[in-house]
Amino acid sequence: MSKEERDAGMIARAAKQASYALAASSAEVRGRALLAVADALEARREAIFAANAIDLETARREGLAAPALKRLRFDEGKLRDVCKGLRELAAMDDPIGHEQLRTELADGLVLTRVACPIGVVGVIFESRPDALIQIGGLCLKSGNAVLLKGGREALHSNAALFAALEEASVEAGLPQGWAGLLTTREDVNGMLKMDDAIDLIIPRGSNAFVRYIMENSRIPVLGHSDGICHVYIDSACDAETAVRVTVDAKTQYPAVCNAAETLLVHRDVLETVLPGVAKALVEAGVALRCDARAQRAVAAAGIPCSAAAEEDWRTEYLDYVISVRAVDSVDEAIAHINRYGSHHTDCIVTEDDAAAQRFFALVDSAGVYQNCSTRFADGYRYGFGAEVGVATGKIHARGPMGLEGLCSYKYILRGHGDIVADFAQGRRAFTHKRLPTR
Amino acid sequence: MSKEERDAGMIARAAKQASYALAASSAEVRGRALLAVADALEARREAIFAANAIDLETARREGLAAPALKRLRFDEGKLRDVCKGLRELAAMDDPIGHEQLRTELADGLVLTRVACPIGVVGVIFESRPDALIQIGGLCLKSGNAVLLKGGREALHSNAALFAALEEASVEAGLPQGWAGLLTTREDVNGMLKMDDAIDLIIPRGSNAFVRYIMENSRIPVLGHSDGICHVYIDSACDAETAVRVTVDAKTQYPAVCNAAETLLVHRDVLETVLPGVAKALVEAGVALRCDARAQRAVAAAGIPCSAAAEEDWRTEYLDYVISVRAVDSVDEAIAHINRYGSHHTDCIVTEDDAAAQRFFALVDSAGVYQNCSTRFADGYRYGFGAEVGVATGKIHARGPMGLEGLCSYKYILRGHGDIVADFAQGRRAFTHKRLPTR
Repeated sequence: MSKEERDAGMIARAAKQASYALAASSAEVRGRALLAVADALEARREAIFAANAIDLETARREGLAAPALKRLRFDEGKLRDVCKGLRELAAMDDPIGHEQLRTELADGLVLTRVACPIGVVGVIFESRPDALIQIGGLCLKSGNAVLLKGGREALHSNAALFAALEEASVEAGLPQGWAGLLTTREDVNGMLKMDDAIDLIIPRGSNAFVRYIMENSRIPVLGHSDGICHVYIDSACDAETAVRVTVDAKTQYPAVCNAAETLLVHRDVLETVLPGVAKALVEAGVALRCDARAQRAVAAAGIPCSAAAEEDWRTEYLDYVISVRAVDSVDEAIAHINRYGSHHTDCIVTEDDAAAQRFFALVDSAGVYQNCSTRFADGYRYGFGAEVGVATGKIHARGPMGLEGLCSYKYILRGHGDIVADFAQGRRAFTHKRLPTR
Repeated sequence: MSKEERDAGMIARAAKQASYALAASSAEVRGRALLAVADALEARREAIFAANAIDLETARREGLAAPALKRLRFDEGKLRDVCKGLRELAAMDDPIGHEQLRTELADGLVLTRVACPIGVVGVIFESRPDALIQIGGLCLKSGNAVLLKGGREALHSNAALFAALEEASVEAGLPQGWAGLLTTREDVNGMLKMDDAIDLIIPRGSNAFVRYIMENSRIPVLGHSDGICHVYIDSACDAETAVRVTVDAKTQYPAVCNAAETLLVHRDVLETVLPGVAKALVEAGVALRCDARAQRAVAAAGIPCSAAAEEDWRTEYLDYVISVRAVDSVDEAIAHINRYGSHHTDCIVTEDDAAAQRFFALVDSAGVYQNCSTRFADGYRYGFGAEVGVATGKIHARGPMGLEGLCSYKYILRGHGDIVADFAQGRRAFTHKRLPTR
C-alpha cells in the first residue's frame, strides 16, 4: 500500500467517524453551516480567485482547449452562483428524519421508516471547481460525510474552495473530518478499497474512467458511463416540433451525456419530416450518418450525409455528429433504444398519446420524454437544486441524483417488551394498521 | 463456457425479453395470474406432494437433520399458506405505475416520477420450497421477471411448484419466459456473468455463500451475509422487559439472521438486572460468553458462564450461545454495535426516551428497536406480505425487502416542443411548481 493510499484511508476513516455525529446533527446546525460556507467563500474571494489564476495559467501553458479553460475558470459569476445555490439549499426542507411510513404492527407496537443519510459518499468529479461546492453542499444538507476528488487541473482552486467549505462548516458545528479532499489518482485507488469506510461512490468523468471505477470496487457505484440518448420521430409527429426538439437535443450542448446521439424516424415520415430535420441539423453544423433508407430520403432532398455502420448505434459522439435510422413502427424504435441505448433519456416526438404511453411503458430508461429535448435531464432543471450525478442503473436513485438520492432510511420499532413468541404461539395477532405519517 | 452456463444465459435472455412486456402489463392481468397460480397449485396438489415425497426420501437417506427436513416438507399446511399469500398479494394495491412526484418545470412542461419494475431479478434461495412461490409471487405482483435458483435438496418439489407458477401465469396472459428455474451451482455462476440481462441478484443462504456472490458479480447484489444483532440493556431499563426481550431475541429461533448474538449491559445494572437475564437465558439452554465485568456479575449470582474472546463480538453463532459485554454508557454500546455489528437490527431496552432517540440516531443499522425483540425484523411481521430478502446495505432497499424494494422508477417528461435553448438564453424561466400527484 502506497503512502497516498494510506493517506486516503486515514481521510476516509475520519469521515466515517464523523458521519455518525453528522447523521444525528440537527437541521438547524446544517442550515447554519451552509450559510457560513457561503459567507466564507465571499470573504475569501481574493484568495480563491488567486488560486484559480494559478490553475488557469498552468492550464494555458499546457495548451488546454478553450472550452476546458472556460470550465476551469472560477470568477465573480461562478462565485455568485455557488453562494446563491448554498443559500437556496439552506432554505430547502430537511431531507433527513422525514417519516416515510408508520404502521401499527400490533397493539402498542409501532413501526416507522425514517429517512437517514447514506453515510460516507465519495464523489469523483471533473475539472469544474464550482462542482466541489455544489456537491459538498448537497452532501452537507443531506447529512452525508463526503470525500471529494477533483480534477488535477483545478488543484489550487479546489484547495482554496475546500478550505472555505471545511473550516466554515466545522466552525458552525459540523464534526471535524466530515469532508475530505483527495487530489491524486492514487487517492482514487485507495478510495476504491475502503469498503468498510465508504458507502457509495459517484464517479463523473469520461466513459472509460467511470467504467474503470465500476469494475474495480466492491463499494456500490451510482452514475453512468455512456449517455446514448435517442430522439424518435413518430409517424404522428408535428413536423415543427420534430425540428425544434432534435436540433436542441443534438446541438444545445453536444459534449454532455444528455445530448442526443441517434435519431430514429418512422418510415411514413422519411420523405415528409426527415428532410426538414436533416436540413436544420446540417445548418447547425451537424454531420449525419444514415442507414440506407434514411440516406435515400436525405440525399433525395439534396442534403449531405454519410452511411452509418453498426457501431454508430453504440457510439456516444459528444460532438456535432448524429446517427439516423429509419424504423417501421414505434415498437421497432423501442427495441432499438433498449438494445443500443444507455438507459439515460429518450424522447418520442408524437401527437399520438397512445404511442407515447407505449414508449413510456416499454423504453427502459431513467427518463422517457414526449415532445421535448433530452437536454432537460438535469438535476437543476428537474427542480432538485443541483445534482451529484446522473444514475442509469435501476437500483436506488435513477436519473439526476439530488438530495433524495443521497438518502437511505432506517426502520424504527418502538415496543413495550413485545416478543415474537407471543405471535408464534397465537397469544397475540398482528394488526398491520397503516397510520398517518408524522 | 459450460453447457449449464449457456443454458442459464438463454433463460436469462428470455427473461430480459419478457421483462419489457411484463413491465407494461396491467394490474388486472398480473392479479389474474396470481389467482390462477393459487388455483393451479391446489389443482396439482397430489403431483406436488409426490414430488416433495421424493425429495424428503432422498434427504432422509442422506441423513439430513430434523430441522432441515422440516423446512423441506411441503404439506397441506404449507400449500394453504402459500395459496393464501398469493390471494392476499392479488388483493394488494398495484406497486407499479404509482406516481411519486409531479412537478411543473415550466408552463406546459410537466415532469412525473412513476414506479416501475426493476426488470430481471435473480433470487437464490435455500431449501424451503414454499419460498419459490412466495418470491415468484412478489416478483409477479411487482412486474419483475425472475430467475429462481432453489436448493438442491428441493429439486423435485421446486420443479413441480415452478411448473404450476409458470404455466398458470402464462396462460393468464403473462409473457412466456418471464420466470426461469435454475437448478445447479453452475447455473449460479452463469447468472453472475449475465450483467446485460439481470438487473439485481438477491442471494439467501450461508454467510460464505452470500459473500461469494457479492464478490463475484458486477450485477448489483442486495441482501446480507452476517446477522449480528444486539440487545443493549440500558441503565434506565425495566428489568422484566430486559428478560423478556433478550430471551425472545436469542431463543425464539436461534438459527436465523435476526436472532441476537451479543448482549450489551450498562455497568449500573450489572448486579441488578443482568443476573435475572442470565438466569433466564441459561434456563432456556443458552451458553454465556462474558467479558470480565459481566463474568464477575454473573458468577457472583451463581450462574455458569465462560470468558469471551475478541472474536466473539464478531461471531454469528446461530445457536444457543450469546456473548455478553459490560459498557459504561449508551455511547459505548452504540460504538460497539457500529464497530462489530452487521447493520441488521439492534435493540435498546430502556424507559429513557432520550437514550432511545440517541440510539436510533447513531446506530447505523437497518432496524433500530426500543423494548422489543430483534426477531420482529421480517417482511411478514412488518406487514409487507412477505420478503425476498433482508438488505443490510444502504443503497436502494434496506431491511426486509417486499414489493417496494422490487420497484425502481422512471421520470416522464411531457412537453410541446420545449427546448433547453429557450431557458439557456433567457426567453423562458423554470417555475418548478410542485403539483399534487395523481
